[in-house]
Amino acid sequence: MPESQRVTICVDAAGGDRAPDEILAGVELGLSRDPGLAVILTGPDEVVVPAAEASVNCAARPTTQSIPMDADPVSAVRSMKDSSIVVGCQLVRSGEADAFFTAGSTGAWMAASTLHIGRIPGIKRPAIATVIPTAGPPVVLLDAGANADCRPEYLVQFAHMGSAYARIVVGVDEPRVALLNIGEEPTKGSLLTREAHALMEADVPGFVGNVEGRDIPAGVADVIVTDGFTGNVALKLLEGMSRSIFREVKGVLTSSAATRLAALAVRPGLRELAGRLDPDTYGGAPLLGVDGLSFVGHGSSGRRAVASALRVCAHAVRSDLLLRVRQGTAER
Amino acid sequence: MPESQRVTICVDAAGGDRAPDEILAGVELGLSRDPGLAVILTGPDEVVVPAAEASVNCAARPTTQSIPMDADPVSAVRSMKDSSIVVGCQLVRSGEADAFFTAGSTGAWMAASTLHIGRIPGIKRPAIATVIPTAGPPVVLLDAGANADCRPEYLVQFAHMGSAYARIVVGVDEPRVALLNIGEEPTKGSLLTREAHALMEADVPGFVGNVEGRDIPAGVADVIVTDGFTGNVALKLLEGMSRSIFREVKGVLTSSAATRLAALAVRPGLRELAGRLDPDTYGGAPLLGVDGLSFVGHGSSGRRAVASALRVCAHAVRSDLLLRVRQGTAER
Repeated sequence: MPESQRVTICVDAAGGDRAPDEILAGVELGLSRDPGLAVILTGPDEVVVPAAEASVNCAARPTTQSIPMDADPVSAVRSMKDSSIVVGCQLVRSGEADAFFTAGSTGAWMAASTLHIGRIPGIKRPAIATVIPTAGPPVVLLDAGANADCRPEYLVQFAHMGSAYARIVVGVDEPRVALLNIGEEPTKGSLLTREAHALMEADVPGFVGNVEGRDIPAGVADVIVTDGFTGNVALKLLEGMSRSIFREVKGVLTSSAATRLAALAVRPGLRELAGRLDPDTYGGAPLLGVDGLSFVGHGSSGRRAVASALRVCAHAVRSDLLLRVRQGTAER
Repeated sequence: MPESQRVTICVDAAGGDRAPDEILAGVELGLSRDPGLAVILTGPDEVVVPAAEASVNCAARPTTQSIPMDADPVSAVRSMKDSSIVVGCQLVRSGEADAFFTAGSTGAWMAASTLHIGRIPGIKRPAIATVIPTAGPPVVLLDAGANADCRPEYLVQFAHMGSAYARIVVGVDEPRVALLNIGEEPTKGSLLTREAHALMEADVPGFVGNVEGRDIPAGVADVIVTDGFTGNVALKLLEGMSRSIFREVKGVLTSSAATRLAALAVRPGLRELAGRLDPDTYGGAPLLGVDGLSFVGHGSSGRRAVASALRVCAHAVRSDLLLRVRQGTAER
């Protein structure tokens, strides 16, 4: 997968709390880092046309509608056919783009990806896969919020899809796959996890059994499978916790003249640490199980997160993530 | 609730990874801090008798059995009538002790508390209430693991019980009660949380709606209600995350001669912060809904955690937690 392989990513210039400025700045940054990358911007004419003109390898596909963050996702996606999210998904479907990225409404992104790209045959439910930074190698956690209510067989498919993704983003050949549970023994947990444990044990290569909440940051598995409710709570808790701790650490560093002086020496290391543990490091999360590559970013994504997302998207295209997901789930 | 009010707490000297030494040291510490406190130790004769003899306000109630951490809780509790956990619960039931504390098997503690103390009439499921340290006032999170599968009406009862507990441990008159969910709007979430939201809105005083994972450390509510699966994952994730971050911060502080020098100035503040965010600060978690006060501590509880737990137990007794829980749930 040479960096020279041309990759075209459609980016929603209108999605996210900091759109369009930070999205466009992130695109610019991403393009400057990867000469093989081309971007198609969807969004309002007055935003995307000047941005495309100002940049090499950047094209505009103006759209006239924008899905508000608080709209009902499914009906918005059905009715707003010329929105930046719907058109982005259609460009993936038609093959004009290799992948789509938005920092807009996660609900609208899921609905548009499912409706306009479609599911891989045999996949019951697509799942959002996020990459969690840890002290060691990162961990793929899924489902991070697509399916609030799950059946055990969904979790088995999540395991296969997450494994395919971990091979690419974590870079391991035989990912260790774990089930998030509230006890290590197979008999522990909810009805869902007890049944899922039995199914995964029979069907998932590299299955290492149950892990608990405390194991998520410990890097004991490459893939951690859970339902979309628990996964979403865990992901947001990780974000909130990491930000809250670093805010307090900053408070300690600025609490006196002596600590402010000391901070000069320790701040670079702490900043590097905070950056490494920041979810923005990975910038984009794919909806695995749809028949094309579609990524969502945090609503608050800034240029750094957008550029990271483009890197992850391009890497997924060049590593043929879609084919790997299809193969990983084909015979199940 | 004067500190002089005599309180008798039964402590399981045999439960926990660091029993009996750290348990006994914690009891010693707790007794030294509270002249109104008396302790009854359950556990092996050769442990509890010398400890009781060496200490003022400390009695021994030797037991001959000990429930292993990996035993099936319900059958162990039924068959091992002379175990330190079962006898501790019976002492609460009989009124000889005002509360029971163990750092042993959580499963055995739940089973023994439910079977040998019994449920408050009308309570469908007891729940474990934990106190989560935040940047601001602490938050009561429940259920932290007693009920992996919940029905919406259980969550309503958890809200009432958690509210009664928050009045005592957080010290607020009108606790703000939130439902842990994966979106702020009432229509978001799983089948369970959507139904629970509607019920809580109608029935729970101080209900402030949904909160998300990131809100747990932010202190936006005094009580956060969730099912025991999600609550347990969240609690353990908080613990794991906080420990992992502080371990990495320590790595930064010791990375060079300059940072080691700087660490002299910032370490006291960081240590205070780590201590404040440490779950051991609150040491013990009650099983709310049983008809007596019964607390569990972390399996790894050291003397500091045990002493904290005794403080929390004594405070709960003196504040009449049990009566408040009964009243809060009586007419529902």
